[in-house]
Amino acid sequence: VKFNLALIGFGNVGQGLAEILATKSSLLQEKFDAEIRIVAICDLYKGSIADPAGFDPQELLDHVNENGDLKEFSAPDSGWDARETIEKSGANVLVELSFTDLKTGEPALTHMVQALESGMNVSTTNKGPAALHFPKLLELSKAHGGQIGVEGTVMSGTPALAVGINMLAAAGITRVQGILNGTTNYILGEMENGADYADALKDAQAKGYAEADPAGDVDGHDAAAKVVILANLVMGQSMTIEDVSCIGISGITSEQIQSAQAENQRWKLIGTLENVDGRIQGSVKPVQLDATHPLYGIGGATNAITYSTDLLGDITLIGPGAGRIETGYAIIGDILSFSR
Amino acid sequence: VKFNLALIGFGNVGQGLAEILATKSSLLQEKFDAEIRIVAICDLYKGSIADPAGFDPQELLDHVNENGDLKEFSAPDSGWDARETIEKSGANVLVELSFTDLKTGEPALTHMVQALESGMNVSTTNKGPAALHFPKLLELSKAHGGQIGVEGTVMSGTPALAVGINMLAAAGITRVQGILNGTTNYILGEMENGADYADALKDAQAKGYAEADPAGDVDGHDAAAKVVILANLVMGQSMTIEDVSCIGISGITSEQIQSAQAENQRWKLIGTLENVDGRIQGSVKPVQLDATHPLYGIGGATNAITYSTDLLGDITLIGPGAGRIETGYAIIGDILSFSR
Repeated sequence: VKFNLALIGFGNVGQGLAEILATKSSLLQEKFDAEIRIVAICDLYKGSIADPAGFDPQELLDHVNENGDLKEFSAPDSGWDARETIEKSGANVLVELSFTDLKTGEPALTHMVQALESGMNVSTTNKGPAALHFPKLLELSKAHGGQIGVEGTVMSGTPALAVGINMLAAAGITRVQGILNGTTNYILGEMENGADYADALKDAQAKGYAEADPAGDVDGHDAAAKVVILANLVMGQSMTIEDVSCIGISGITSEQIQSAQAENQRWKLIGTLENVDGRIQGSVKPVQLDATHPLYGIGGATNAITYSTDLLGDITLIGPGAGRIETGYAIIGDILSFSR
Repeated sequence: VKFNLALIGFGNVGQGLAEILATKSSLLQEKFDAEIRIVAICDLYKGSIADPAGFDPQELLDHVNENGDLKEFSAPDSGWDARETIEKSGANVLVELSFTDLKTGEPALTHMVQALESGMNVSTTNKGPAALHFPKLLELSKAHGGQIGVEGTVMSGTPALAVGINMLAAAGITRVQGILNGTTNYILGEMENGADYADALKDAQAKGYAEADPAGDVDGHDAAAKVVILANLVMGQSMTIEDVSCIGISGITSEQIQSAQAENQRWKLIGTLENVDGRIQGSVKPVQLDATHPLYGIGGATNAITYSTDLLGDITLIGPGAGRIETGYAIIGDILSFSR
């Protein structure tokens, strides 16, 4: 099966995807019969290029590394904006990697709607559209014969959504609990090691885990967006981000951390979906876990999710929650699921 | 899609499967378009019955609970042995649940070959044939247009094989490590709680985790069979059980357990597949893990597997490793994968 990709955005994740294609293309062809090529890139800063024959992904990476952009790349500048790229590139997969906006989902939403309406498949790692408009996007994909994949929006390339949707749906998922934000888990761990909140946050920023404006992480909004995505995709609930009660970690004190440790417990920022009085409710909040909880041992910036099920009890999946290659891999997962 | 099942064996796992079908049939039909019916059962002790219209799974369970067998069940005794059941029942899926024999794989192997040669799909939770003859069985399935599923042979219904085969293959699995036997993990945990080996083993037997003859568990052969299955299915290696070096837990002393605990470490029976001098080698042996290892925290009879990958680092899946419903669910997973 031939997958011709148009990438909107060529930052960390797009480059991670190109890096995977540079080394794994023949494996993907042999093992999965998937011929994956990048035929167009449209990046607000790096420029727009297109070639129906596809680019050599290593050449793209080398050029960006040397020049910072694609403006002098051997392929001619297409001059296309995102709309034209989707319309004219001949791609059958839109890979939407523009900026996440958890308020409107734009501009990604517009790009995705356009692509789905033209029958293309869409893969995104962009939480905004998935958290805010998933039911609408799914409907569009069904109406026009495309497919939509958002594996990278939760736990990057760790197949958290695929396991929940494809493998555990028949087991009856009754509750979801997750450490869905690596930055806050890292900060809480550093506080256990003795750092105060401000120093732990600075450390997380220095390591590249936290953004310059850390609010999205530490206030729990990033985790809340993932809770909404899980509600829609795994539990079939039309939930929006306003429905999720959300408390971040900035109120957690060193004293609380230490007193938990003294009882052999740990504070973790837990995103939860559970049945409360007959309705599925979503929350993000710091929870004190004891050592028998499956999420107790998750350290550093690692993410994890526990699906509680009728038939199998608890199933826990632990893996990376971020990273250029890790998130790029999620797009490969989406594409391979399109061919099934 | 209609799946008509012939069950060879109607013990714990077969009854677990019937229990799932009794409660989840309409869900499976709605969500996965899978109409799953049991059209024949052949059990050496409980008798043989067949009905092309399918049985009510709850009636089967009620009858076995009341009578201990199916000989007086409302459907007439078919009088068929396994061979006739596969040949004459009109089933398109053989569910092979007869006794596991890790030396020859028989009689399950013969049943599976017959079914595959006639173009049927086969699902089994029976480790023998999967560990000893998987390449041959896969070849037969391809030659005759059927499919073969063995999800339940490793970690029961926890989708350990599906995650490794379908979701992580493109990530480049470089090493597999697992707690693949719940009995031994339970025993080691009880020894950490102060029991000596003999008492912990008795306790595991009383709880139904260990067989009357516990050798298969405590000597590591059960875990070794799973290592072989993982080698064949996940790493594409034609390995047999003789290739796996195998040391059980019966030599582990209370002193070793305690001295590990004093260093904040734990003894675990770990099945491993890893590259040693350019060749994938399999082993089962007790390993002392420190608290940062993803398998350190796995307690009780729970199982877990860590896939180390090129692109995603470590991905760990934790879940049940046994149980009638849990293992029955693995067959549902196999059947749903047939329809994809």
